[in-house]
Amino acid sequence: MKVGDPVIEVTRGGRIESRHRVSAALVDEQGRLRAWLGDPELLIFFRSAAKPLQALPVVADGAADAYGLTDAELAVCCASHSGEPAHVEAVRSILAKIRCSEDDLVCGPHPPFYTPAAEALQQAGRAPTAVHNNCSGKHAGMLAWSRHAGVEITDYHHADHPVQRRICGEIGDWAVSECKALPVGVDGCGVPSFAQPLNVMAGIYARVVAAAERDPASAAGRVTRAMTDEPYYVGGTGRLTSRLMEVTGGRLVAKFGAEAVYCLGDRDRGWGIAVKVEDGHRRAVGSAVVELLAQLELLTADELEALADRHTLPIKNTRDEIVGEIRPNFRVERSD
Amino acid sequence: MKVGDPVIEVTRGGRIESRHRVSAALVDEQGRLRAWLGDPELLIFFRSAAKPLQALPVVADGAADAYGLTDAELAVCCASHSGEPAHVEAVRSILAKIRCSEDDLVCGPHPPFYTPAAEALQQAGRAPTAVHNNCSGKHAGMLAWSRHAGVEITDYHHADHPVQRRICGEIGDWAVSECKALPVGVDGCGVPSFAQPLNVMAGIYARVVAAAERDPASAAGRVTRAMTDEPYYVGGTGRLTSRLMEVTGGRLVAKFGAEAVYCLGDRDRGWGIAVKVEDGHRRAVGSAVVELLAQLELLTADELEALADRHTLPIKNTRDEIVGEIRPNFRVERSD
Repeated sequence: MKVGDPVIEVTRGGRIESRHRVSAALVDEQGRLRAWLGDPELLIFFRSAAKPLQALPVVADGAADAYGLTDAELAVCCASHSGEPAHVEAVRSILAKIRCSEDDLVCGPHPPFYTPAAEALQQAGRAPTAVHNNCSGKHAGMLAWSRHAGVEITDYHHADHPVQRRICGEIGDWAVSECKALPVGVDGCGVPSFAQPLNVMAGIYARVVAAAERDPASAAGRVTRAMTDEPYYVGGTGRLTSRLMEVTGGRLVAKFGAEAVYCLGDRDRGWGIAVKVEDGHRRAVGSAVVELLAQLELLTADELEALADRHTLPIKNTRDEIVGEIRPNFRVERSD
Repeated sequence: MKVGDPVIEVTRGGRIESRHRVSAALVDEQGRLRAWLGDPELLIFFRSAAKPLQALPVVADGAADAYGLTDAELAVCCASHSGEPAHVEAVRSILAKIRCSEDDLVCGPHPPFYTPAAEALQQAGRAPTAVHNNCSGKHAGMLAWSRHAGVEITDYHHADHPVQRRICGEIGDWAVSECKALPVGVDGCGVPSFAQPLNVMAGIYARVVAAAERDPASAAGRVTRAMTDEPYYVGGTGRLTSRLMEVTGGRLVAKFGAEAVYCLGDRDRGWGIAVKVEDGHRRAVGSAVVELLAQLELLTADELEALADRHTLPIKNTRDEIVGEIRPNFRVERSD
């Protein structure tokens, strides 16, 4: 690799053992690339970083009001939640309000991300179900939209179902592009996922937070405010996404996606950021995001201090000894 | 990234979502670099790919004979085993023969890699112990050497303990280098791990298999033959390392290391290969190793067919749908 390539280094005994390459784009509301790492036009899948956008039609088209969804319930619609009891309760509450059952969720099951919740299930002799899936809130939101629109709720995960066509149009509108032209894959939970260049994803987040600031009562305003007012429901105990929104008092809107995608919106500046660890390894994400925000001066000294444990991480062995660390090594490039 | 950089691609909906860069070196007994990928002089840690070398002194200095270690027990000394009952039995048998107990193992515990074994422990209400650690055989071998040498068996994991100094010298001899000059880190299980360039690691494997062929009764001959005669004990059910040695009838000696290191020796040709996935992600290793061996024509068509499930791997979602794949995309470079 070339000296100066932006990387997260994994060290052992003070030497580099592995490297994660990082690309990122910081874009303003007008779509101008203001700063970047690596390849800011890298085409990647949006994955769960698209969840706030997938939740917008739930508010915009009246389902949230019709069913009286709370901020916590809207936040869990945008979540990759940890399957903690409060998350599961919020999803069940949405399902009850829209007269659906857990059986209507087509996301498959996986154990809760939050270990104590996974252990509690196991000790109770119960298998995880779709409601524990980190995406169950997003699926509940898609069901809510479908119920309110009066369309069939079965097969809501298919690309040609009205809710998926509606979401595709929504993302296309914010991307200022034709959604039908976007390459589509199937996400980890069965619904469509769209491929976008990093700078386009960053532009979407910039426009959403700028719109939210201009009109707090808009769908963008309500969804992003639900996320930052209820950050625990967007992630869970100790999760980077919840921590970033908590620590910055909601100035940053943040969302992780599988395969090491991360999107952020800065409400004060109307800027969007999209980050991708090239190899998809989750362990490098926190270090990349916190260092990038620090170099961009988008965190105060106190906020950076509060996130220090995500900035550089110890590597421990099975004897619980610290044998290395995960640390950033890059310099952000700027257009000005 | 540049077109042509050697990578393992992770796709979704036919598009690349993530990329793992690969470096590799194929070296002959004389240390000549015959083929490579990426940076063949990349300095990395040997990790568990060093285990066969760490086991050599156990045979060379008489401990294996003195305690009557079987081939399966020698193989488990070289293993990153899956913690299956037969692996645990083999380690316990070594400990009994050398009058040590499980408490003498300083590797910390982790659940068995083999899921049914981990589940069986859990269902029995038992916590994993050091003997289930994938490195427990290596540690038992270090205890065997120490017991036979008449030195203290406590603190055998410290870099200045006689067994670690002996191993360091052994690796230095095969590397044709001064071991004391090697950068040292602490391995996942607490013992020293040495940093080496990939081409030096490949040269070590080349010399070991060449020496083994010249003198089957030598330590190199006995250790490598134990590995290929008892491949199940070096890994476990379904593990790539066991499969590679089984499928090739022992022509290839193979060993995985943490952070996506892989070493191989070809007995027939006296060649060594070292592979590193730059970011340390394990999921890319099988695809890289099988494709590399195929391009180097070190697998027959039948062997390649038998390893097809490790060559390209499906990506499934929580609905058990295939949504992408892990596949190689590189062309090996050759010096001739």
